[in-house]
Amino acid sequence: MSKTNAGRFFEDYTVGDVITHAVPRTIKMGERALYHALYPARHALHSSDQFAQSCGLPFSPLDDLVTFHTVFGKTVPDVSLNAVANLGYAEGRWETPLWPGDTITATSEVIGVKQNSNGKSGVVWVRTTGRNQHGEVLMSYVRWVMVRKRGQGPAPETVIPELRSAVAAADLVIPRGLDFSAYDFALAGEPHRLSDYAVGEVIDHVDGVTIEEAEHMLATRLWQNTAKVHFDATNRPDGKRLIYGGHVISMARALSFNGLANAQMIVALNGGAHANPCFAGDTVRAWSEVLDIAETPAPGVGAIRLRLVATKGAAGVLRTDDGKYHPDVLLDLDYWALMPE
Amino acid sequence: MSKTNAGRFFEDYTVGDVITHAVPRTIKMGERALYHALYPARHALHSSDQFAQSCGLPFSPLDDLVTFHTVFGKTVPDVSLNAVANLGYAEGRWETPLWPGDTITATSEVIGVKQNSNGKSGVVWVRTTGRNQHGEVLMSYVRWVMVRKRGQGPAPETVIPELRSAVAAADLVIPRGLDFSAYDFALAGEPHRLSDYAVGEVIDHVDGVTIEEAEHMLATRLWQNTAKVHFDATNRPDGKRLIYGGHVISMARALSFNGLANAQMIVALNGGAHANPCFAGDTVRAWSEVLDIAETPAPGVGAIRLRLVATKGAAGVLRTDDGKYHPDVLLDLDYWALMPE
Amino acid sequence: MSKTNAGRFFEDYTVGDVITHAVPRTIKMGERALYHALYPARHALHSSDQFAQSCGLPFSPLDDLVTFHTVFGKTVPDVSLNAVANLGYAEGRWETPLWPGDTITATSEVIGVKQNSNGKSGVVWVRTTGRNQHGEVLMSYVRWVMVRKRGQGPAPETVIPELRSAVAAADLVIPRGLDFSAYDFALAGEPHRLSDYAVGEVIDHVDGVTIEEAEHMLATRLWQNTAKVHFDATNRPDGKRLIYGGHVISMARALSFNGLANAQMIVALNGGAHANPCFAGDTVRAWSEVLDIAETPAPGVGAIRLRLVATKGAAGVLRTDDGKYHPDVLLDLDYWALMPE
Repeated sequence: MSKTNAGRFFEDYTVGDVITHAVPRTIKMGERALYHALYPARHALHSSDQFAQSCGLPFSPLDDLVTFHTVFGKTVPDVSLNAVANLGYAEGRWETPLWPGDTITATSEVIGVKQNSNGKSGVVWVRTTGRNQHGEVLMSYVRWVMVRKRGQGPAPETVIPELRSAVAAADLVIPRGLDFSAYDFALAGEPHRLSDYAVGEVIDHVDGVTIEEAEHMLATRLWQNTAKVHFDATNRPDGKRLIYGGHVISMARALSFNGLANAQMIVALNGGAHANPCFAGDTVRAWSEVLDIAETPAPGVGAIRLRLVATKGAAGVLRTDDGKYHPDVLLDLDYWALMPE
Repeated sequence: MSKTNAGRFFEDYTVGDVITHAVPRTIKMGERALYHALYPARHALHSSDQFAQSCGLPFSPLDDLVTFHTVFGKTVPDVSLNAVANLGYAEGRWETPLWPGDTITATSEVIGVKQNSNGKSGVVWVRTTGRNQHGEVLMSYVRWVMVRKRGQGPAPETVIPELRSAVAAADLVIPRGLDFSAYDFALAGEPHRLSDYAVGEVIDHVDGVTIEEAEHMLATRLWQNTAKVHFDATNRPDGKRLIYGGHVISMARALSFNGLANAQMIVALNGGAHANPCFAGDTVRAWSEVLDIAETPAPGVGAIRLRLVATKGAAGVLRTDDGKYHPDVLLDLDYWALMPE
Repeated sequence: MSKTNAGRFFEDYTVGDVITHAVPRTIKMGERALYHALYPARHALHSSDQFAQSCGLPFSPLDDLVTFHTVFGKTVPDVSLNAVANLGYAEGRWETPLWPGDTITATSEVIGVKQNSNGKSGVVWVRTTGRNQHGEVLMSYVRWVMVRKRGQGPAPETVIPELRSAVAAADLVIPRGLDFSAYDFALAGEPHRLSDYAVGEVIDHVDGVTIEEAEHMLATRLWQNTAKVHFDATNRPDGKRLIYGGHVISMARALSFNGLANAQMIVALNGGAHANPCFAGDTVRAWSEVLDIAETPAPGVGAIRLRLVATKGAAGVLRTDDGKYHPDVLLDLDYWALMPE
């Protein structure tokens, strides 16, 4: 018997199964420092304990994407080692902030399977849940991937989960205590409050960052995501390493500070597509479109639904005439963030 | 109205104005670990809690340049986004060490303006002050930059601040409790005390470090300095990214350990010039000249004033025959450090 | 007198001398975060406080190699600045885990000298001991290097220390409290316990990581190892920087998770050779051979002796027909780790 993990194939997923992902991870301030070194992250709530306290929190939580990346990384050996493609995300919700010292564990429930007509692969849907050491849900999200079949056995019964196109504003979980009624716009970096944004508004975040091999590998390893495509230059004829899609998410989100400095916390992931691969040498830029605006029950706290597009080209361009993503588009992400009203 | 920050132009500075810089930042041990990874920093006081305690401090403070870089980074969106050139520093003084857990905020007072004769730009002087969460001054310094004019309006009244050529030894602030009377030279790494150095002495620090794109970008982001020239390879025809001058300062200071291991804490920045741009691939070396030596009231603690020169060439060379900086010189810095007598 | 450190030459080592290495270093969680960013490290005991507690420890210790690299780094200015070659390791033993907040100091005792027949260099053996702030031994190991002679003086009396070919299983120090009787194999990542491994078994760890200049320099500096060959691209005609051998050790050990996820703690270093130099651009892979299996007095805790080979080629190949290391082999390491029985 081989000692190493060959990963799961399509046949190894049965609807209803719950997979316990390995290697729990304690996250502290070192990971926060690295997050600031890897991304131009400047959202004040994630930068300053005092700013977070002025917003009703005990101290500054880790960036919400640290939770996502760490949970995602745990799933890789069980979900995407033999994946041909990462097809989508839905129904992502952050339920508890990640505090320094928390330990993250993750499980995934298989909620759908559908064999492809070629009989060689299939689509698997999982709902992944990350929890802290108290058993509280940090976040959960649905992800679906195309996975190779090991053999030629019969197709399982097709189960396609019903997924919402977006998390409803009423279902957003607001961190306990969050209060933007004494929000300091000067310290946060921009004067724009929720009422200053209009649905349909497009914001070009202006700045660009050229990606280096060393940086995306540091980031991807930090989340214990060890998928070889990100690290092994002998894996492709051109010697390129495919950049973890989450690196592009964090880069684009950090760049969006310039114009969305007050979109402080990410509370839902409605959907997302890694439209084209990103490689070292690409210069990543970002633009956002306001998709929706909503109230929340927390004092002074509103919610803004945003499309965040990462591109290696011009802002505002999303698709070509045939409806496909423009080759310059790297990421098309749909999320909810919290912003002072 | 655009949501993004276009930066201030020359017209936007009025003498007496105080600018509150955005994004307070809590600094902990993660930033210290990164500092040690980014620079060959070995000064014992900043490396070991026990060594710092043997010098009368409660534990090891962050490297003094972490304060400088973080404060400087906060000023970039308000001071140097439209700057054509960073012209100089003066009257820099560290007043309180930066302890892990401190949160840094920064403000700048405009203390001088002078429109250039071409009417298209001008020089702005600001005195920037960084404070901790208790409101104590961590450090302050004067910096002047050349900034583009937005329009063609009249010149403001010229105000040129009087600046001292160096902080007087009597004005140096010694960290509370600092005591070098039981200083352990063996653990510090070198036997040389203040009396072993002579004014005019030149020390070649021998070692060189070749700079990588990934490293200077990690460093610059860590201080939340997001000036696009440091990150965006499409910004110049040659695809090079201009390395943040502070990266060269920290690299040279760390290299100066070899010969100045006992110059433990930086307490004043008398002046500095980024003589030539630094790019990835350059191999940075450093040499120092002893400019002055002074006593302080703290037990066993003396002060040494040093010229620290970073070069990509030979040690000792500073200027060409025409009085300009030699093209190999990257940095010419004048500072005071504390050293056991 | 020069202020800088020219390093010791062969003549400067006398059997019985004890060298106090400079620059004590406090290690905290920032270094752990960086370790996870630099290496694909996933051993659960070093990743999660809760997992470590379930194994009887108060919380998660730093990776055992952090102790080794930090202690080794301290010795460089005194032992290997003028070394021509790093010849070997023996009798390495970890005696106390490294906890966040610990401060490491190091000393080395000269235990052997032997001048080479050419009269220009000699071999020096030192036993290096790293201690924490309580004076407890963290680890000790013997290392021998070939060092240049300064002059042409007579040869010292040859002293060659008797060194064991491996640490005996009975001499392994088990961390206080370690108990694998409630070990969670699902969270650890693999089901294989000690009894599943057989002496002579070879495990190909499958994955590869391509090395970048920025990464090995970050790592090497983190341990305050400032040997110029690792940092200065002008040091060799081909502009390459020689990668610190410890970087390859940590990379290979982290890759060995895939197949040896339960080899949780390193407790002895029996020997090791840096078979060929490693340079940026090399893709490092690893394979292991089980050399021995032993019991320990701790509940549920067994010991496994492993040969860990890092290669830039195929797994399983070690030597060419003439008995020399195959040119693809980078590292041949012999160590003991603790594993649930």
